[in-house]
Amino acid sequence: MEEKQYLMLPGPTPVPPRVLRALAKPMINHRGPEFKTLLSEITAGLKEVFRTENDIIIYPSAGTGGMEAAVANFISPGEKVLVVSIGNFGDRFAEIARRFGARVEKMDFAWGTAADPAALEERLKEDKDKEIKAVFVTHNETSTGVTNDLKALRKAAGEHPALFIVDSVSGLGAMELETDGWNLDVVVAGSQKSFMIPPGLSFIAVSRRAWEAAEKCTNARYYWDIREARKYAEKGQTPYTPALPQLTALAESLRMIKEEGLPRIIARHRRLRDMVRAGVRALGLELLVKDEIASNAVTAVCAPAGIEADAIRRLLRERYGVIVAGGQNKLKNKIFRIGHLGYVCETDILATLAALEMALIGCGFKANLGQGVRAAQEVALAATQ
Amino acid sequence: MEEKQYLMLPGPTPVPPRVLRALAKPMINHRGPEFKTLLSEITAGLKEVFRTENDIIIYPSAGTGGMEAAVANFISPGEKVLVVSIGNFGDRFAEIARRFGARVEKMDFAWGTAADPAALEERLKEDKDKEIKAVFVTHNETSTGVTNDLKALRKAAGEHPALFIVDSVSGLGAMELETDGWNLDVVVAGSQKSFMIPPGLSFIAVSRRAWEAAEKCTNARYYWDIREARKYAEKGQTPYTPALPQLTALAESLRMIKEEGLPRIIARHRRLRDMVRAGVRALGLELLVKDEIASNAVTAVCAPAGIEADAIRRLLRERYGVIVAGGQNKLKNKIFRIGHLGYVCETDILATLAALEMALIGCGFKANLGQGVRAAQEVALAATQ
Repeated sequence: MEEKQYLMLPGPTPVPPRVLRALAKPMINHRGPEFKTLLSEITAGLKEVFRTENDIIIYPSAGTGGMEAAVANFISPGEKVLVVSIGNFGDRFAEIARRFGARVEKMDFAWGTAADPAALEERLKEDKDKEIKAVFVTHNETSTGVTNDLKALRKAAGEHPALFIVDSVSGLGAMELETDGWNLDVVVAGSQKSFMIPPGLSFIAVSRRAWEAAEKCTNARYYWDIREARKYAEKGQTPYTPALPQLTALAESLRMIKEEGLPRIIARHRRLRDMVRAGVRALGLELLVKDEIASNAVTAVCAPAGIEADAIRRLLRERYGVIVAGGQNKLKNKIFRIGHLGYVCETDILATLAALEMALIGCGFKANLGQGVRAAQEVALAATQ
Repeated sequence: MEEKQYLMLPGPTPVPPRVLRALAKPMINHRGPEFKTLLSEITAGLKEVFRTENDIIIYPSAGTGGMEAAVANFISPGEKVLVVSIGNFGDRFAEIARRFGARVEKMDFAWGTAADPAALEERLKEDKDKEIKAVFVTHNETSTGVTNDLKALRKAAGEHPALFIVDSVSGLGAMELETDGWNLDVVVAGSQKSFMIPPGLSFIAVSRRAWEAAEKCTNARYYWDIREARKYAEKGQTPYTPALPQLTALAESLRMIKEEGLPRIIARHRRLRDMVRAGVRALGLELLVKDEIASNAVTAVCAPAGIEADAIRRLLRERYGVIVAGGQNKLKNKIFRIGHLGYVCETDILATLAALEMALIGCGFKANLGQGVRAAQEVALAATQ
């Protein structure tokens, strides 16, 4: 059945029909008055999701482009930065910073665990000469399904003058994040996650302190030059031709976000997470991470002993039309990851668990049919009481 | 009338209805088998348009991103490059190269003229030590509507070992370009021009010699790192999440391009250009550039004495729904630019000229109603005989 799929990925996430329709709007002049109106509407809506009064810049790029912009604009070659990594995307931030000539100190935590605020606090206290110019933190680590306690990490950084730079590409909109309330200098997000639109845009919120760093930064940059982007934003334009379909789609999805309301959206994501976890556990499978640090956006499930994670994924896709993600790097073929991010409802989770039960049986694992679904149903019922 | 517009821009260009519908396809997994099939189909289609057997890499970015990739991957800081500029986009190439630490020598030709192959030949002959590592050339200069004689320029570079790097963002698909036949090392193109799809993708064709340069290049790059892109392309993926709507749209538009056929498409663009030029001349307006170097993609028209170009544009837009581009930099408010690129037919040109006649009258210029249209009709009729 063509195009009939349950896209249970941590991105790209399913796009609602009304947003798909908004993608198909005819092109407009990106130097004309209609575009100005569109950009202004979108920027206002993004600020509400980011919970900020800071400027927000939109790039026509993948989320990784936003991460690169967060390095290229705020860190000069030779500057020392501290990258807190709990997985693949923390490692990516470190690698980008390295490529751009930063002296990178990594603070690694085991994959599947969260960063320890006390360790960060201690490290920054040791930095008496304030040599560290920026701290990079992943909000939601997509590779393991761990959410860092961003608020506590920011608090741990205290009065240290380092910029606090956050990758919330897969976090923002699915879990709490207060750009202004938590005093985050730079926050990067992407379009194909909780924003419910296709890949093609990255967003970056910039504090006053970060703007000052951007002015002084000596890194090579043209496409990512955020000073140029601000100059154009002031006249309702972007420096280069913007990805118009994603922008018209975003205007529509921001309306949907407003209609549902951010607190309810976050509660829904939390509930979907709890349903997945209860369901998976009831089937006798192991979860990669502990409940306290479990992500609202994606859940990593360990394959049962003797069964390849990718065999389960293949059967889920080919036989049941359910698309889940695989493990990355050291977790390849050991876990599969169920995304429950964006335009996803309780029934999608029930369907996914039902298909998972079938796929497990198909792979020779003695799943108790209906058990996973039932556990998830109970979570959903309890939530509505 | 909402969404009723004649988008006569040099980009974004109108998107055909069947391509708009292809934009609205549900998301798929960019790490799955369907994406692999899609990417392979698209790459084959792009190679036909680029007229090449070289690798083609697709970036989720504006055309300027492709230009940045053409600098960041092939030029190391401190290397000398020669940038041939005939307008705004040649200047942009020079500025990007400067930002990335190249020693830039500019070879400037007056805005509205084309580059002189003899001058390039002479300059490269002087470079006895082969200090110049790359020559950057704009194929079609969008700011003035001038097309460089790319074949002659390449010939002029002769056996000099500098990489020959071409910005054909607004050229490819609307005029002749033979990547392999003319021995072009790097060719950059963009999605929102003759490809008839929305902005959001850039394409870059890379020769064997250019790959060798990329391996040795010391520039800071992560997002643009073309070695990484090639590695992923080999397994049917992209390093970062691709702009899926533009890719599904491209698959559809490449089918349309194949149906019409590249030679016929180029002939159509040439005819549309000739219609515009004849029509504008018949109204007594001056064209910015000579016939011999006039672009198939965009025509720059000088505003009549005493009338602001932007006043004509405003009336065209507000009263007649015809969107044309303004002048850039030194040509601001002195010219307007009629795009005739991509999904544009003869009747669109007739409508545009008819509206232009009305707008000129509205601005106080004594246009002879119907004269411009008639001249264009005659060009079209002659072409079909």
